[in-house]
Amino acid sequence: MIEKKITLSVDMLGSETKTGEILKGLNQSLLRNINYEFLLYGNEGNIHKHIKKYKRLKKASSIFHCEEFVSMSDKPSDIIKSKNTSMFLAIESVKQKNSDAVLSFGNTGALMSLSLLHLKTLNLIKRPAIATIWPNMIGESIVLDLGANTKLDSRYLIDNAILGSSLASILFNISKPSVGLLNVGTEEIKGNEDIRAASEKLLDLYRNNIINYKGFVEGNDISLGKTNVVVTDGFTGNITLKTAEGTAKLFQNHLKDAYQSSILSRLGYFLSSIAINSVKDRLDPRVHNCGILIGLNSLVVKCHGESEYRGVSYASDIIHLLLNRQVNSKINKYVAEIQHKRVE
Amino acid sequence: MIEKKITLSVDMLGSETKTGEILKGLNQSLLRNINYEFLLYGNEGNIHKHIKKYKRLKKASSIFHCEEFVSMSDKPSDIIKSKNTSMFLAIESVKQKNSDAVLSFGNTGALMSLSLLHLKTLNLIKRPAIATIWPNMIGESIVLDLGANTKLDSRYLIDNAILGSSLASILFNISKPSVGLLNVGTEEIKGNEDIRAASEKLLDLYRNNIINYKGFVEGNDISLGKTNVVVTDGFTGNITLKTAEGTAKLFQNHLKDAYQSSILSRLGYFLSSIAINSVKDRLDPRVHNCGILIGLNSLVVKCHGESEYRGVSYASDIIHLLLNRQVNSKINKYVAEIQHKRVE
Repeated sequence: MIEKKITLSVDMLGSETKTGEILKGLNQSLLRNINYEFLLYGNEGNIHKHIKKYKRLKKASSIFHCEEFVSMSDKPSDIIKSKNTSMFLAIESVKQKNSDAVLSFGNTGALMSLSLLHLKTLNLIKRPAIATIWPNMIGESIVLDLGANTKLDSRYLIDNAILGSSLASILFNISKPSVGLLNVGTEEIKGNEDIRAASEKLLDLYRNNIINYKGFVEGNDISLGKTNVVVTDGFTGNITLKTAEGTAKLFQNHLKDAYQSSILSRLGYFLSSIAINSVKDRLDPRVHNCGILIGLNSLVVKCHGESEYRGVSYASDIIHLLLNRQVNSKINKYVAEIQHKRVE
Repeated sequence: MIEKKITLSVDMLGSETKTGEILKGLNQSLLRNINYEFLLYGNEGNIHKHIKKYKRLKKASSIFHCEEFVSMSDKPSDIIKSKNTSMFLAIESVKQKNSDAVLSFGNTGALMSLSLLHLKTLNLIKRPAIATIWPNMIGESIVLDLGANTKLDSRYLIDNAILGSSLASILFNISKPSVGLLNVGTEEIKGNEDIRAASEKLLDLYRNNIINYKGFVEGNDISLGKTNVVVTDGFTGNITLKTAEGTAKLFQNHLKDAYQSSILSRLGYFLSSIAINSVKDRLDPRVHNCGILIGLNSLVVKCHGESEYRGVSYASDIIHLLLNRQVNSKINKYVAEIQHKRVE
């Protein structure tokens, strides 16, 4: 059986991520996902210099030379004008059906605006969201939105529950992933009007056996892994994610200081450095932080601006899995079920 | 010179914190703060059993036997009715000017409601806030609100900036502490209307040399220690704090697993256990998590529900410092300065 090709457009410019790291990561992912093809938008000379090491990747890739790119400080109004940036061209390739998804390391706001403008949202999804895979005590969960919509609106929270369920269902191979709504307490009187309205609606979807809604969850429940999906608004989600990253860094920093406090500790550090490094890897945002822009007609993934090859191959594997299992059909199925229940 | 006595009412019931730990902690704080007096609201027999170990504490304390207490699951409506709980009596003692401040380990929502009802807010402060001292890379910062007001309103954010500046000024001994407003980015177009309106107003207070406002900060800036004070609404603050606690626990958990992965790692763990424990202590919420209810006519402090003696003495020391340096006069001074500028 010849597997259908899956094509990924990669925006290689506008971040601190090195061309060599991107290509090494894509190559690793290609070894696992042999039906992958890549459209590479970046500096041709630079790509050629690094890609020659990877014969199979070279064969599976088409290179599109770009001079222009969106910088991290560009404002949304400037970005929309230019049709020659690597980011625009990568998105355009998906719009023109030459590719199935976009991977970028650049300006998140710009990627969000351009994707929304050119790819549009799925039917009956009001706004896309940015989702991430968050490590927890017992595995991983999907947390969304991380900043696509900073306005609190109960309708967006419902959309996020649908989008998050679809992602978790595929990524964790669960038919009905559990969903929690992030709040300041678990009692039903907690929080504000929008969040309580969303909870009411989600309870309705739970009773109709559409969303496996478990009620409110609190900040610490994310790391405990209380639910497969944690739904929140983009304002809270963005601040929460960045605070968690900061806390992990603080912990590492204090640990380093503490280890330098005595000779025995230093010896201890030396003996346990493999263990410590494995923890760093497991929680390092450069390896694991990819934001999945979900709810658009095509999948767009934003990786950490300073990704290493492991982060690239991780993101690339996730995109492959989501496309292979048709994440957007899954979302459409949820939407159709909800519509169907309304009509009855 | 005979120092003026400072009296602290302690609500000893309604939490997992043990009487013995509370008394041990208060005793430690008394050794450092010799003009402290305590009004202890709890189980008389239990208190007598433990307090006999601490002669000086026994002499400095008055015991008030309480049978009733507010439980963690009590709802605000139930709490307001009972006039015999240890929490109510502790707050009442401050209202009657028999004491200067309240320390409790119990139900935060109940403590907040009862304190607001009986102690009322300071002049021109619309709502009190819950503040905490957050460890960061270079020291500590004040973060507020952590859940007193879950409604986003620009006026509360301004109040929080005033309250946080007053706390930081005293606790860190800085005349004009730097203040950041928590947002999803640092550019002025980021966030929602309320947060942008608050930022405009804070810039005005900065230009008038009242608040040392530094603009927007992001989640990771808390741990970096970018500003002395981080202002946010109670919804975001509560979720952020709990997520950070969860992340610290996740890190500890992963570290423990990693150390068990090989014999060398286990030996490393043994040799470096002092270092690791010191990190745990520095970031352990049971030791450091006290919520300062600020903006009321009297100071009320909520400690972690499972505090150890170190957490108790830490909170008790902070209360002493804040009362000694007259935190509420500081707040009133800020409010008066703002009023003065308005009149001009």
